[in-house]
Amino acid sequence: MLKAININDKLNKFSDHWSPRVIGEMNDYQFKIAKVKGEFVWHSHEETDETFIVLNGELVIEFRKETVKLSKGELYIVPKGVEHKPYAKHECHIMLIEPKGIINTGKESSKLTSKNDVWV
Amino acid sequence: MLKAININDKLNKFSDHWSPRVIGEMNDYQFKIAKVKGEFVWHSHEETDETFIVLNGELVIEFRKETVKLSKGELYIVPKGVEHKPYAKHECHIMLIEPKGIINTGKESSKLTSKNDVWV
Repeated sequence: MLKAININDKLNKFSDHWSPRVIGEMNDYQFKIAKVKGEFVWHSHEETDETFIVLNGELVIEFRKETVKLSKGELYIVPKGVEHKPYAKHECHIMLIEPKGIINTGKESSKLTSKNDVWV
Repeated sequence: MLKAININDKLNKFSDHWSPRVIGEMNDYQFKIAKVKGEFVWHSHEETDETFIVLNGELVIEFRKETVKLSKGELYIVPKGVEHKPYAKHECHIMLIEPKGIINTGKESSKLTSKNDVWV
């Protein structure tokens, strides 16, 4: 019997914030999960759109002139090249879908820049 | 205030089975949701992997020699070119992620072949 990827099981395997883990690959795209809390940094991805799905909790994505608030079961697709800054008042669990190789802070180097392509 | 895509709200907007609705686009990929029940047809997608995420219920994906069972919160990525047949004993809600333009029954024409690129 083949085994499905259980998102909650994968979430239980780490606890650090803003450090996405890869749980699956579709063509040259990756499914990543992350636990986030507090403010991330302003950044953009010049080469690609980026999808956020909230698994647990609430996430705010700030743009320079607008904001979007995501609750559990909601998704938002940040268009490529658009500056954004995710924020979560309380711990929030998210799934990110984007091409393989995308750095979480875009071209902004930060203490929040995480190692890429780390599987869980 | 920008509006997130609420998956449950979108699910409430249709009731037919095996007829995916697009809810978002990331680069040349689409997020689709579908309600499924009973047996689908054997088919494959020669050009792409295809991701299944179960939102509600249980889905079985049969392959020629193996099977995978997905519960709510589980995902599976069917590799390109691999024949598969989804099956749900009871109504099940799924998200599909795949490149734009993929036909649900692959190259197999069937009464279950649905119109492509239908948004909800």
